[in-house]
Formats: sequence, C-alpha cells, structure tokens
Amino acid sequence: MTSASFDYAPLLAPNLPPAAAKWSGFPKYNFIGGHNDAEHVPVDELVAAATNVLRREGATLATYGLNSGPLGYRPLREFLVGKLKSHAGITCSPDEILITSGSLQGIDLVNGILLAPGDTVLIEQETYGGALTRLTRQGVKTVGIPLDGEGMRMDALAAALDDLKRRGVRAKYIYTIPTVQNPTGSIMGAARRAEMLKLAQAHDVPIFEDECYSDLVWRGERPPALYAMAGGNGVIHIGSFSKSIAPALRVGYIVAGWDLLSRMLAIKQDAGSGALEQMVLAEFCKSHFATHVPALTKALRVKLDVLMEALSEQFGTSAEFSEPDGGIFLWIKLPDQVDTVKLGQAALAAGVSLNPGPEWSTDKQYSRCRLRLCFANPSPDTIRSGVATLAEVCRKEFGVPTRIANVERAKAR
Amino acid sequence: MTSASFDYAPLLAPNLPPAAAKWSGFPKYNFIGGHNDAEHVPVDELVAAATNVLRREGATLATYGLNSGPLGYRPLREFLVGKLKSHAGITCSPDEILITSGSLQGIDLVNGILLAPGDTVLIEQETYGGALTRLTRQGVKTVGIPLDGEGMRMDALAAALDDLKRRGVRAKYIYTIPTVQNPTGSIMGAARRAEMLKLAQAHDVPIFEDECYSDLVWRGERPPALYAMAGGNGVIHIGSFSKSIAPALRVGYIVAGWDLLSRMLAIKQDAGSGALEQMVLAEFCKSHFATHVPALTKALRVKLDVLMEALSEQFGTSAEFSEPDGGIFLWIKLPDQVDTVKLGQAALAAGVSLNPGPEWSTDKQYSRCRLRLCFANPSPDTIRSGVATLAEVCRKEFGVPTRIANVERAKAR
Repeated sequence: MTSASFDYAPLLAPNLPPAAAKWSGFPKYNFIGGHNDAEHVPVDELVAAATNVLRREGATLATYGLNSGPLGYRPLREFLVGKLKSHAGITCSPDEILITSGSLQGIDLVNGILLAPGDTVLIEQETYGGALTRLTRQGVKTVGIPLDGEGMRMDALAAALDDLKRRGVRAKYIYTIPTVQNPTGSIMGAARRAEMLKLAQAHDVPIFEDECYSDLVWRGERPPALYAMAGGNGVIHIGSFSKSIAPALRVGYIVAGWDLLSRMLAIKQDAGSGALEQMVLAEFCKSHFATHVPALTKALRVKLDVLMEALSEQFGTSAEFSEPDGGIFLWIKLPDQVDTVKLGQAALAAGVSLNPGPEWSTDKQYSRCRLRLCFANPSPDTIRSGVATLAEVCRKEFGVPTRIANVERAKAR
Repeated sequence: MTSASFDYAPLLAPNLPPAAAKWSGFPKYNFIGGHNDAEHVPVDELVAAATNVLRREGATLATYGLNSGPLGYRPLREFLVGKLKSHAGITCSPDEILITSGSLQGIDLVNGILLAPGDTVLIEQETYGGALTRLTRQGVKTVGIPLDGEGMRMDALAAALDDLKRRGVRAKYIYTIPTVQNPTGSIMGAARRAEMLKLAQAHDVPIFEDECYSDLVWRGERPPALYAMAGGNGVIHIGSFSKSIAPALRVGYIVAGWDLLSRMLAIKQDAGSGALEQMVLAEFCKSHFATHVPALTKALRVKLDVLMEALSEQFGTSAEFSEPDGGIFLWIKLPDQVDTVKLGQAALAAGVSLNPGPEWSTDKQYSRCRLRLCFANPSPDTIRSGVATLAEVCRKEFGVPTRIANVERAKAR
C-alpha cells in the first residue's frame, strides 16, 4: 500500500481519543496490566478440556450462541452458580448470569443501560483506571470517596450521598471493588458491607460490585459479596476468569436480575461472546478450578513478597505501602516531590512500565506521588532488577531514594 | 432471588432498545441468522489445532494480547495476508490487519471512528439487517441505493452522490457487500467495481467493503476486492471466519491503513479479542482452510438446491427468486398482498423463523412482500418440511400460494 493518500481526517467523528501508538513488544520490566504468571497457565488441563468439549459438542459451534442462547454457554453459567455460592455466598440461577467478553464488557453493558452524559456516579477515590476512563469518556461525573485500609469509607460515602441529596441529584450507582480493591488490595469486612448496603438502600442508589480479583485472596475465606448480602436487591455483580485462569481468555460475567439482563442483552449486539473460550473454561473449571486457584494464589503471594522486599531494599523508607489482602498489584506512596506521571515516562525509557497514580484516582493531587505495580507477570528476578532500575530512575529524576537511606536501612536490618 | 424489588426503571438511560425476550431454544425450522451446517464443523481438525497451539504457546495466554499486541494474534494476521492475496487480490501487511470479535465488532469500530448522529451514509437498498439497525440506533441517515442482479446500481449511486453534493452533504462512506451480497446473494463484477471506485473517488467518499460471505462462492473465482483494486486507497475492508469455519467462533478482521487502525484501537477498549479462538483458528487455517472451504461450499450448494426446489414445489410461481452466486441465504419475493412481517409472526408460531424483508431494506414498501431464508443450518429434510409449513401458513394468512397453482405447476414439469 504505497498510495494511501485518501485523507480520512475530515471524516473522523468528533471527540475521539488520541490515536493508539504502535505496539513494539512488552517492556523488559512489565509492571502494568492484568497480566498473569505464565508458568501457572494450566496448559495440559486446557488441552484436555478443549479436546473433551470439542469432541463432545464441537458441532454446536455451527450456531450462534451454541445451544445455550444469548446469556452464554449454559454449563459455564451452571459452574458459576456453584462457584458464586461457595465463594461469595451468592444464590442465583443460570438465568441470572450473563457471560461477557471479559468483565470490561460487563462494565460497558452496565454503563450502557444506566448512564447518560451528565449523570453522576459514586466511586472509590482510588479505583480501576479502565472504569474511570470509560466514565470520563461517557461524560459522567464521578464523585470519588476516600479509602482506608478496609476500602471505601462509609462516613465519606454518607456525606457524599447527603450532599447529592441536598443538590437534588440521584446517583446512578455506587461502583465498588470490595474484595481485593484495585489498586489498594484491601478487602472490605462484612460489617462495612452491611453499612454500605444500608446507605445505598436509604438513598435508593444501586451498588455496582466489581469482583474481578476476588478469587485471588491470600486467606481462603472472604466476606460474602454485597450481592449475596442484599439477596440481589439493588446490586449488580460482575466478575471474570481473566485473573484466575488467563487474561487472554476474554470471559467475564454479570450477575443481575432479568429486568436488567434483558436490557443488557438488547444492547449486546455482538452475536454472542466467544464460544470456544466459554466451552473450554467450563470444561476446565468443573474439574480444576478448585485446585488451580489456590496454587496460583500461592505463587502470586511469593511474588508479592519479592516485590515488597525489593522495594524496601531499593527504596528504603521512601516507598510506603500496606500489604494487600490478595490480587496482583501493590499501591505505593513515594515521597511528595515525586510526580509519578513523569516517573512513568522516564522509567519506560529504561524498560520499566508502571501505572502512575493519577490514572487510577479521581484525586490527581493525592495520587500524584503514588503508583501501582503489578507483580504477577514478571519472574522474581525480573521483579528485583525492575525495582532496582526504577529506584535508579527515580533517584536521578527526583533525588529519592537517597543511597544513604538505603545503606542505613540495610544496616539496620 | 425473591426480593428483587429495587426499581431500576427510573435509572435507565434514555432511548434504550426494547428489552430482549427470554430465549426458549431454536425454532424447529430455523431459517434465520448466520448459522452454519453442524455436520461441516471440522471438529477433529479443531481438536488437533487446539492441542498443537496450546502445547506450543499456551503459556502466552498469561498476557493480554498474547505476544502479538492489540492488533491480534500475529500468526492469524499472517495467514490472512496470504488468504487475502490469493482470494481477493489484496496486498497488505500483518500490521494493516486488526483482528476483531466477529465482523460485527469491525462494523462497530468503523462506525465508532467515523460516524456521529446526523451523518449520512450510502448503503445498498437491501442490506444486512445488523448494519442497518446499528446506523439507525446511532442516528445516522441512510440513503439506500437500489440493486440489480449485480449488486448496487451505479446510475443510482451516481445520482445519489450528485444529489448529496447539491445539498452540500459529504457522505461518511458507501457501505457495500460486493461479494455475495446480503440478502440478494449477487456478486458485483470487476467492471462495476471499477466504476464504483471511480465514483467514490470523484466524490471523495470512502468505501466500506464488507466481505463476510465472500469465501462461500459456488465458482471458486471471484473478482478482486474493491480494497485490492484501489490499492487500499479510500477503502476499508472487513471480513470474518464466522461463515467459513463456525459462527460461534467470534473472529473477524479489518483491513485498513494505520491512520485508521490506530484510531480504531483507541476505541477498542476490550483488552483484546478472545485469544484462544484466534490461536485455534490460525493453527487450523494454515493446514485446512484451503480444503475445508470448498467442501463446505459444496454442501451449502446442495442445501440451496433443496430450498429452491422446495419453494418451487410448495409456492409455485408465488415465490420469485434469483439463484444466488454463493452464501447461505435466498432472497424471495412473494405476491404483493403478502406482508412478510405478519407472515414472520404467524410462521414463528408454527415453528418457522424467517427474516421479513423490511428488516433487511431501507425501502419498507418495496421489501414488504420480500423475505430472506437462510439454508445453511437446517438439514435437507428440515428445509423441505419447513418450506411446506411456511407455504401452509402463508396460504392461511394471505391466500397464496393457492393449491391449484401448485398442482398445475407440478403437472407442467
């Protein structure tokens, strides 16, 4: 194609995001994205699952939606009924589950049926960057609620709801990631969940509960989902297999009543989510989910320890963080003078990718010196070298961590 | 969930489409949708492909986009480079191909970067219903160009472009399905393609070429794609594996320059299309695409013959149609008094699903007595019984076909 002279620029829709940059491979030290541990992709079991399910039901690929209809492959929904019951305390039927192309499509469908430009939603002040970007692009106002070690602060939520009420605004939903909060890694306790439900009900605002990391908790037990505690009333729940099995498999789900799912199906005009991925996952999960997830979590926990050790070693007291309760990321505060957006650019030039705090927060000032590092994908050695490189870049750009501090800290240990 | 008493109605976004109906299984005589022939899903080869590719590269599922970046699994793009060259005459590189979740996502991405409410596009008067619905929902004006046996009529296109010019309107694109037109099944010849390109260039309007059925042609040869003839200049090309392999695999593609793909990637916020489906397809296609497609096409041709025979037998001269050049559907005219929307409702009650003409046309009056029947999924016997049932319903509702006409026709043969 040498003659690509047609000029599309005057034809482009208004308000498009900037053009994507060309992809040039992963950075050497990859601390971003929901990537997982390559050694823990259950390859043999996936091969067996693909073989079994294709031999048994491969011919059903000839019809859109297999023989299961638009909600998604029924055996996968049936597996989820059991998993959601035992893990999250949720009682639901396969007809209250819609399989989506990743939990991102879940977010898009919930937003698609509920949000219009000018609407208001309440979200955690530090939250998933992809959710934030979507809301901003849709012209939706976000009210960020500050967090503490247990997630969204209920005093702040109550105040924000009261404030909206005074101004005559009914928020469309409260978006929360209660179980392994992104990016802080906290788990909201049962008492606070009850309090949140009470507040939401008092203000007649639904809760949008995102549990895409909830399978990856260090201690097996977790509080029941908000959806479970509410008996599904006024709560929409989404989840994903991206984090527990493999992110390149684009399979997530929404749990909600038919009044909402029937609306979502009407705008889910994709002729169904990928069927082979659903079939293979269902077949795999029936036999292996219960053993796979604890093994994966154990490996992730080891990597988290490596990351925390490397940070202490390289950054000394310059890096502050709380140990997360699960997940694949660590939320870190650097000294106030560090601008993590600038740090991110300089680090990338040195082969280190990171998520600057402002991309993950509604409070750009508070998050300016904070960042998120994902630890699931790089090997322990890569984590160590990556953190060392990051410390070097940070020192060069912002004067911290100082070498002396580190040496002193190392001596003190 | 007994207590689903939360009322979401006041929170719903404005202008949502009506809620979806509950799915209750496929109709007995399924003549709608792009479903394919269950006997021709290449199950053994898919099992082998899944096994090989997972054993070799399964660990790469741990990263979003595998090791291929956001354009999609590179070996699949490399296969497409060869296929597009040999089948459609297109010269392109793997970096000019974006893998999508079905060609529907391709349509959404093209529309997403080009269209805003109030825009105008030129489309074939009879066209793919899903494309039409999307345009209507996006608030885009559609100018339908009448068809003849070779597809879009160039005199009508020239007149429409001139008319828009007079009114100071620059259309955003000309949407065409030149190779196995949906629903008429025609193939546009090379000379008319050249004429269309000339008109499009003269009016500085790009062409959006949808070739999702182009692999299924009765005679192997087909004219080069518009994209090929234009050297990619001012043409966007999309295609799919849904029709040639299996529709439940949601894998399509867009061929376009980086100036456009970089814009599409910026709004393709799905963290990649399903990787397992891409991997398995690439592995399968390398060895089997060239033999699979002719075998499938041959089987489809047999079913078409069964359908045409059954229609002649049951409807006599009441059903008029031209033999399509390929594909999986037949476009049929019934006597003027037949309202195919009403016929469709009555037929469904008798277990027969069909696409009423008005869903597939911009001219609701012209298409009122027309309908589309898809023949790929039902078996020959099911096709025969389904058409007999449809004739009975039609006779009961509209008085045609008359029994006498059929008997007379049968005698005459």
